[in-house]
Amino acid sequence: MDYVYGPGRNHLFVPGPVNIPEQVLRAMNRNNEDYRSPAVPALTKTLLEDVKKIFKTTSGTLFLFPTTGTGAWESALTNTLSPGDRIVSFLIGQFSLLWIDRQQRLNFKVDVIESEWGEGAKLDVLAAKLAADTDHTIKAVCIVHNETATGVTNDLSLVRRILDEYRHPALFLVDGVSSICALDFRMDDWGVGVALTGSQKALSLPTGVGIVCASPRALEASKTAKSLRVFFDWKDYLKFYNLGTYWPYTPSIQLLYGLRAALDLVFEEGLENVIARHKRLGQATRLAVEAWGLKNCTQKEEWHSDTVTAVVVPPYIDSAEIVRRAWKRYNLSLGLGLNKVAGKVFRIGHLGNLNELQLLGCLAGVEMILKDVGYPVKLGSGVAAASSYLQNNIPLIPSRI
Amino acid sequence: MDYVYGPGRNHLFVPGPVNIPEQVLRAMNRNNEDYRSPAVPALTKTLLEDVKKIFKTTSGTLFLFPTTGTGAWESALTNTLSPGDRIVSFLIGQFSLLWIDRQQRLNFKVDVIESEWGEGAKLDVLAAKLAADTDHTIKAVCIVHNETATGVTNDLSLVRRILDEYRHPALFLVDGVSSICALDFRMDDWGVGVALTGSQKALSLPTGVGIVCASPRALEASKTAKSLRVFFDWKDYLKFYNLGTYWPYTPSIQLLYGLRAALDLVFEEGLENVIARHKRLGQATRLAVEAWGLKNCTQKEEWHSDTVTAVVVPPYIDSAEIVRRAWKRYNLSLGLGLNKVAGKVFRIGHLGNLNELQLLGCLAGVEMILKDVGYPVKLGSGVAAASSYLQNNIPLIPSRI
Amino acid sequence: MDYVYGPGRNHLFVPGPVNIPEQVLRAMNRNNEDYRSPAVPALTKTLLEDVKKIFKTTSGTLFLFPTTGTGAWESALTNTLSPGDRIVSFLIGQFSLLWIDRQQRLNFKVDVIESEWGEGAKLDVLAAKLAADTDHTIKAVCIVHNETATGVTNDLSLVRRILDEYRHPALFLVDGVSSICALDFRMDDWGVGVALTGSQKALSLPTGVGIVCASPRALEASKTAKSLRVFFDWKDYLKFYNLGTYWPYTPSIQLLYGLRAALDLVFEEGLENVIARHKRLGQATRLAVEAWGLKNCTQKEEWHSDTVTAVVVPPYIDSAEIVRRAWKRYNLSLGLGLNKVAGKVFRIGHLGNLNELQLLGCLAGVEMILKDVGYPVKLGSGVAAASSYLQNNIPLIPSRI
Amino acid sequence: MDYVYGPGRNHLFVPGPVNIPEQVLRAMNRNNEDYRSPAVPALTKTLLEDVKKIFKTTSGTLFLFPTTGTGAWESALTNTLSPGDRIVSFLIGQFSLLWIDRQQRLNFKVDVIESEWGEGAKLDVLAAKLAADTDHTIKAVCIVHNETATGVTNDLSLVRRILDEYRHPALFLVDGVSSICALDFRMDDWGVGVALTGSQKALSLPTGVGIVCASPRALEASKTAKSLRVFFDWKDYLKFYNLGTYWPYTPSIQLLYGLRAALDLVFEEGLENVIARHKRLGQATRLAVEAWGLKNCTQKEEWHSDTVTAVVVPPYIDSAEIVRRAWKRYNLSLGLGLNKVAGKVFRIGHLGNLNELQLLGCLAGVEMILKDVGYPVKLGSGVAAASSYLQNNIPLIPSRI
Repeated sequence: MDYVYGPGRNHLFVPGPVNIPEQVLRAMNRNNEDYRSPAVPALTKTLLEDVKKIFKTTSGTLFLFPTTGTGAWESALTNTLSPGDRIVSFLIGQFSLLWIDRQQRLNFKVDVIESEWGEGAKLDVLAAKLAADTDHTIKAVCIVHNETATGVTNDLSLVRRILDEYRHPALFLVDGVSSICALDFRMDDWGVGVALTGSQKALSLPTGVGIVCASPRALEASKTAKSLRVFFDWKDYLKFYNLGTYWPYTPSIQLLYGLRAALDLVFEEGLENVIARHKRLGQATRLAVEAWGLKNCTQKEEWHSDTVTAVVVPPYIDSAEIVRRAWKRYNLSLGLGLNKVAGKVFRIGHLGNLNELQLLGCLAGVEMILKDVGYPVKLGSGVAAASSYLQNNIPLIPSRI
Repeated sequence: MDYVYGPGRNHLFVPGPVNIPEQVLRAMNRNNEDYRSPAVPALTKTLLEDVKKIFKTTSGTLFLFPTTGTGAWESALTNTLSPGDRIVSFLIGQFSLLWIDRQQRLNFKVDVIESEWGEGAKLDVLAAKLAADTDHTIKAVCIVHNETATGVTNDLSLVRRILDEYRHPALFLVDGVSSICALDFRMDDWGVGVALTGSQKALSLPTGVGIVCASPRALEASKTAKSLRVFFDWKDYLKFYNLGTYWPYTPSIQLLYGLRAALDLVFEEGLENVIARHKRLGQATRLAVEAWGLKNCTQKEEWHSDTVTAVVVPPYIDSAEIVRRAWKRYNLSLGLGLNKVAGKVFRIGHLGNLNELQLLGCLAGVEMILKDVGYPVKLGSGVAAASSYLQNNIPLIPSRI
Repeated sequence: MDYVYGPGRNHLFVPGPVNIPEQVLRAMNRNNEDYRSPAVPALTKTLLEDVKKIFKTTSGTLFLFPTTGTGAWESALTNTLSPGDRIVSFLIGQFSLLWIDRQQRLNFKVDVIESEWGEGAKLDVLAAKLAADTDHTIKAVCIVHNETATGVTNDLSLVRRILDEYRHPALFLVDGVSSICALDFRMDDWGVGVALTGSQKALSLPTGVGIVCASPRALEASKTAKSLRVFFDWKDYLKFYNLGTYWPYTPSIQLLYGLRAALDLVFEEGLENVIARHKRLGQATRLAVEAWGLKNCTQKEEWHSDTVTAVVVPPYIDSAEIVRRAWKRYNLSLGLGLNKVAGKVFRIGHLGNLNELQLLGCLAGVEMILKDVGYPVKLGSGVAAASSYLQNNIPLIPSRI
Repeated sequence: MDYVYGPGRNHLFVPGPVNIPEQVLRAMNRNNEDYRSPAVPALTKTLLEDVKKIFKTTSGTLFLFPTTGTGAWESALTNTLSPGDRIVSFLIGQFSLLWIDRQQRLNFKVDVIESEWGEGAKLDVLAAKLAADTDHTIKAVCIVHNETATGVTNDLSLVRRILDEYRHPALFLVDGVSSICALDFRMDDWGVGVALTGSQKALSLPTGVGIVCASPRALEASKTAKSLRVFFDWKDYLKFYNLGTYWPYTPSIQLLYGLRAALDLVFEEGLENVIARHKRLGQATRLAVEAWGLKNCTQKEEWHSDTVTAVVVPPYIDSAEIVRRAWKRYNLSLGLGLNKVAGKVFRIGHLGNLNELQLLGCLAGVEMILKDVGYPVKLGSGVAAASSYLQNNIPLIPSRI
């Protein structure tokens, strides 16, 4: 199985799936259980309550689908919309593109607002559309909070403000796959209709739980939404929630206990501290990129992502070679450039259960690779820039003071 | 987390999720990995080939969906059929009922052929329908190979013979959730169009992989099938198969390695030996039930299931109390009676990576519980009947001879 | 590694090493740690306190040696005695024999009081010796609480009463390897000088911790004892206890966390409940043996062991063949007869984290094996006898009521 | 249990216990087994053969004691020497000091040859002693190959040359605890009598196996050596080797399988590649120390250790504060200065299953800590020096080319 064995730890810096902490691996190291015994509903109940805290919602209803983020997309859309519904969606990178692809395949009429890759969502265009839509034909505004392909974070509070400004009732649907539990996300404050994420991202679990949270309005919308959905139907879950058995079909016992452990770690660190840690990791990475003399794919500071940084390489370098070399020589896993930016960017994921020294090891590796592929980097320069910042900003570990 | 702790092993005898062998737990005890590195496609390639062996197909195409059996149902249907298509489906227990519910919700026109719960599929009715259907309006015949709720195994070879007799082109869709890798199942020989199972059943993994296998005809049908599907669309997979990267979205790294280990165990034991072991476990269980003076829910020997036995309790006993008591006093997990047979039967799952002494421990436990709830069982009688048979039939463990 | 793979669980019924509960496996599934960080002493402190509870001592001092029970024997002796010291020791089976061998090799003058194998320690001979020893030349009385080879439990309270009767100051040294945390053991009440056990027995951990508990008198004795000891010297530990760092050399991080988990399980069940469970398991096993028409190697009821039962086979059967067959055909691990009783007895270990249904599975297996080797057992008879008793005596699992 | 939780990986850079690779953790994640079944001896046989390869001996006899390195010391000495024997031993740091302490407590007459801490063994003094010892009163020469406290590696080939020069028959006893399987060590070529190591060092396992390898001459010596030993006696092992059951007392099943996995990894990488990797890690660390403007405790290049580097801090800094801060702020575990160098040095362990990026993360952390405690380090300088060297020297990972 380990025919690609390399000594030491694999340095996992793709923007998902991310490093799983030992505590979570331990929690999942267990046999199956009867999910109809009283133990599993009791556990599930705590999960449904506690996951809501990382969405910052008290009024939302949570669904833990045995699926991936892609499945969560489908669940969010089909439970709230009807075929032919007009929706607005922002194309700013590969993952927003894929979500739009699904929106179109699900037969919604999608107003695509496209940006250059590396730019954020054009919210002024949204404003214009909403202003024009006095008949409220727009049923939903779909946005990827953090575009994982380009490292762009959109300002969701502003989306809400625009919706409010035009008193537009469109549902606000958010892909929080690479943001929730890492970036500041406020479901209730921002009036988000449906938000979703996947277990293998900031929660630092294996893939396998598509987490969908529906606001009361979204839940209400699901009663009349005509899109066909069966596996992803909220109705089946709600029925079992009422029964107190919670699961319409078999959940992964291991992931339930893993999620419990992951939440416990988040709460022990403190959600705000988790977010602050991601800010430090993001800022440190950007300082390194700057020190290397390279460009961040993200074109303005306001869009800088604290969970993933896409680094633009000079035209004479193939970024895919950087990723290959990282793996083949340094046991370092970096993210490829996707689609439009294939060959042009490589990505450093810095989300999940990760600390600063892990990141600095990665940055030191990237420097060597850059040199390997012929880019005239000054070795140590990125690490120096990053650690100068970090040394001023890392807090003591509270449990160890 | 272990607030329901009881000393010793939990005796897991629900018909899924089943016991995970240590070898598989070990294989899954690992960090996430970049699924775009060369390692994951290389591993996936071996899985796609080797899983086909347990379906006994060489011509099929395999899909490993990050979902449950319920999702696999949806994938099998939506990729091969169009809304309004007429299909024939057998209602013989709770799981066939649930599949039919999905068939109807997916807008197929379902001819439901109902049996008493405890009886097998009425294949004579199927024959009559096919005979009458000279226009070939029936697009598919859907059947649950092994109805987990009642412990009824249908004769799939006979279904094929009937289809052949009438030269009927209907696709033959099989739910093999509680059969494949435990009962004799022959995808190619029986001309099955689509067969499916879930990882947490005979493969003895955690929940999380919905395994769908499509025959060439089914694959061909998917090109014109008009049912809406996105997450469950085979097309996305086929595209990535061609690219050699295999995954349209993030798989569970842990389940891939777990599946590899599970297959290795199956092949080490030998698939035919696995099936023979399930026959022994099934027969031993039925002999015990008989010795207890209780009735098997399965009404004829030809339908006896070797993966699950539903035991009918006398009217003065609530079978749910048996299940509760098993868990509360003996750390034994039994299956509840579902729907029509709720309160009337309890179920002993005997599938997956399980041996005879584990089963005998369970049977000894059931005897005590029967006594607990007032049934005049002779303690030891079921174990005696089972072990008399087993002692004559258990082979030596080949690796230990 | 699994070249001896057999399907399903291995049924581990040797009297050590015993089954490790999942909770403990999980706790040990971890990387190494710096044992000089503040975390390890903090953990160690709780262990040293809590292990004392299972010895039922408040005044004892505990040592957790990275060794086996054999090393613990050496530590108990060399820290309290001087070469040439006269000690009394009871030879009643293989493990008392081995301890005596060590006593002699360590140059003590051992008065061996021998019993037939299957009989308990001859305490009347001890009484006579103590009566005669008015000069107090006897420095210690060494006794194996539970002789694992024959399934004989000695009455330690009686030893104490005899010592008291003659007001004899001999140290009372107890091998509690297969008793402590399973049988009633009271270090303080019985005035035990040194008691010891191993992690792989009733505590249900892997091998690797030799647990030695010294009374204040034993600790005092260690100051003048002249036996050479280095690795096993208590002095080194006491020095580090004073420093608060606890470890004179590197402990196994995994076993420390495993021990923590094991203790948590014991306390959750309740030590008295643990002991009561062992009583049930022992009694059930003996009833089965009786039902099979076989003899217990233990010759009187007063010596019956609740942690291991040695079963005498008829002369025409080789008990080693029973053990071989158990493993080769049933994936069942039984204990061999050792030394004098080799070929004559096989042993069923029933200690540690084990429940009644596990035992019944084992007993059902033993019945089949007995039949395999030509003993005319009535299948089911032993299970019937055992479960008749158990069904009346198993309590509800408190956490599940 | 995780009351000292900090986010992300703990960066473990103490010179033992070291990081355990996932493959080894997986191998150890298992229940106990009957060590008297045929499986355990079969496994043990492969271990005894394969561990010899990392000692580079074909004629040696291997003992895997359930103990620590401290116990292995005792076993090496007591099996080959008699009380009162004159031996030569080098005091060059804390671990050689501790071994000498044991030598003296075991009643050998030790000629201690002391060096400054930071210097290697004074082999010229050894030469003089051997020259003078025409009567061959010196029975053994004891040397620590790599002094873990100061990062000093002694030249064992030179010791052999000196012994040969004077045709002196003294046994050559080597503590290889922090060298074997990381540094070049050649038991047969260098005529080593007994060599020993511990599982938690270069083999990257948990603590718990004291590995002792005896040359034919040492084995011969054990027949007449009069030192008292019982637990650590080779004789008991040899008896069970002859029986083919291998174990005189219960081994840790988990560590046996772990050792198997650890050896498999060493052989997959290639022992010479493992050694070369340690050379790279050692050299990179030293270059960083130099770049920081700090002194290596090791006073000459010939003694530089490739497994641990002791870094001397300026007098105005307390090195213990560096270690505390590493743990409290950066989740980094460094080694304390011990005894004479307490407060004056901190240690970076760079042995075991570790790669270059892990080390660079550690070095980046050390730089920040140095700044924290007021040392005017240029951030990034050490990493730059190390990575400049590494970027030229890291090979591709063979399995990934």
